Amino acid sequence: MSAAPLTIAVDAGGADLGAAEVARGAARAAQEHGVRVLLFGDGDLAAPSPDVQVIDAPRSIAKDPDPVRAVRAHPDASVVQAVQAVAEDRAAGLVSGGSTGPALAAAIFRIKRASGIHRPALAIPVPAFEHPFLLLDVGANVDVRPEQLVQFAHMGAAYAQLVLGVERPRVALLSNGEEPSKGTPDVVEAHERLAGEAGTGLNFVGNVEGLSLLAGGADVVVCDGFTGNVALKVMEGTSATVMGAVRRVATASARGKAGGLLLRPALREMRDSIDPEAHGGAVLLGLRKPVVVPHGSFGERGIAAAIGIAARAAREDLTGRTHTALSAGGALRRRPEASAAPGSVSDRP
Amino acid sequence: MSAAPLTIAVDAGGADLGAAEVARGAARAAQEHGVRVLLFGDGDLAAPSPDVQVIDAPRSIAKDPDPVRAVRAHPDASVVQAVQAVAEDRAAGLVSGGSTGPALAAAIFRIKRASGIHRPALAIPVPAFEHPFLLLDVGANVDVRPEQLVQFAHMGAAYAQLVLGVERPRVALLSNGEEPSKGTPDVVEAHERLAGEAGTGLNFVGNVEGLSLLAGGADVVVCDGFTGNVALKVMEGTSATVMGAVRRVATASARGKAGGLLLRPALREMRDSIDPEAHGGAVLLGLRKPVVVPHGSFGERGIAAAIGIAARAAREDLTGRTHTALSAGGALRRRPEASAAPGSVSDRP
Repeated sequence: MSAAPLTIAVDAGGADLGAAEVARGAARAAQEHGVRVLLFGDGDLAAPSPDVQVIDAPRSIAKDPDPVRAVRAHPDASVVQAVQAVAEDRAAGLVSGGSTGPALAAAIFRIKRASGIHRPALAIPVPAFEHPFLLLDVGANVDVRPEQLVQFAHMGAAYAQLVLGVERPRVALLSNGEEPSKGTPDVVEAHERLAGEAGTGLNFVGNVEGLSLLAGGADVVVCDGFTGNVALKVMEGTSATVMGAVRRVATASARGKAGGLLLRPALREMRDSIDPEAHGGAVLLGLRKPVVVPHGSFGERGIAAAIGIAARAAREDLTGRTHTALSAGGALRRRPEASAAPGSVSDRP
Repeated sequence: MSAAPLTIAVDAGGADLGAAEVARGAARAAQEHGVRVLLFGDGDLAAPSPDVQVIDAPRSIAKDPDPVRAVRAHPDASVVQAVQAVAEDRAAGLVSGGSTGPALAAAIFRIKRASGIHRPALAIPVPAFEHPFLLLDVGANVDVRPEQLVQFAHMGAAYAQLVLGVERPRVALLSNGEEPSKGTPDVVEAHERLAGEAGTGLNFVGNVEGLSLLAGGADVVVCDGFTGNVALKVMEGTSATVMGAVRRVATASARGKAGGLLLRPALREMRDSIDPEAHGGAVLLGLRKPVVVPHGSFGERGIAAAIGIAARAAREDLTGRTHTALSAGGALRRRPEASAAPGSVSDRP
């Protein structure tokens, strides 16, 4: 790993906790990860560290209901300026501390796709209790072809290995059954390809079902962005609903209350163990440079982790090594095709 | 509701708890729901009630790895004989107390699709904590067209109203965002149709996200069988994982153990409140007669509930009233098409 100082562009416009919180995260990342930060946001932000350069960009398009239009209409917006710094090689990666929709739209627009990539995919580390895994795509593409699923598999595996530190990531396709014949025609075809030449160099373990998603059968789970978005949100919703039900029974009676009080520290520890801030948030894979999109609610710690993730992806040459893996599997895009349409970018998963 | 005695055909071959347990469920249903039961299974079964007629059908294909082939090859199999009784109008509905795969294959094969239906869909009542809802399709069709999603909406609404007793069921499409523009092209088109003429008579409330699926936004949630199967299993898996984690923290320390002991009765009550046996299991909608597929693990109570569901669907003329609703929305299949291919039937969701 290179020790050269690396610059990450960070958009502070529109973060739930405010730009000053993002700035604190940037300062923390500078110290923890040895990076420099270009911070785009309101100019009143005092630079919180000599390694953080604040660039005046008071216009935020974080709340715009039409991110694609807003990105086109406002080149001065903080997120567009941050993306532009990456596109022009003034920074090695992007962290959006603001709203996800505009960040994805701007990045897909202005940071070129990496060579040989069909479409970028949004990947999110799911902080499951005992078996965290990377899920992609979770919303960048609602409709995908088998060759795109194959690329997602390689992109996710490279990310899990180089950035998340999983030694030989087990890669699976999300399907409605474990047998290779299960799934939509596209999933079945992707399975065939990944079990064949396209899976070269990949630790492809076949299909995984929704039931065992959290049970640790795979480190990287691949699907189209529609299914991935639904699966991710169903996990979040179910988890919140079950925890809410446990909380309710623990306050419904005197006996329950006593039990709840005794259990509270352990339950809090359990909740902390699945803290998504520790993982830095979602990442858009398949562009020339890493783009990390922490959740809008993240505080200093989450922002710092996101910057660390972007720096690690850049230092490990994620893009180049993903290209090598795709090439080994004969899974690079061969003919030129229409450029990725930001119109299909979905909101924050 | 007619008080005429109604006959339900029940397959006892291959139930996890054995044919005798299914027979007890049949006797219970005869009493509770005023039905007669044709019970297909091993002839050694003593008829447990004068209203239960045991028909000797010792061959079970419940464990056959290729249900479609097995159904074709073994007309004497218990499930095929039970289906045949329904197809020949000797029974008004089917309950499969055995394995789901063969039941679906045999039913789709031999019980005709209801007039004007594109494809049958598998619907399951999800026993969410405070807001149960009906989810369909959960696995009968991995690939669907917009006009099929429209039919699923009407089929699910009629079932929720007539059989589950929901007064004016709110029907939603499962998607990756609430806006009408969100989803695959097929989901977007189905949304347009349901918001227009095809939604006539329907209480269509738009899209629902995975996050709010369990939060009570809809009584009937419609999607393709791939997405529905993944969503259902992710719910089950997440719920089990979270409850397992709670159990673990409640046994990891003396303090936790004490708390867990105090909470145990309330947690058990919570678990019982989401008992799937109470709801009778999944149902295959869109055939001429109701087909109910309780989970293989169901006991007497679940089997009896399933028989009750089939009887209610028959008495309420679910098929006829679904047809009327589809007709009002101009959503009936117009041209003849290839018959539903049982080859695409998936296993138990």
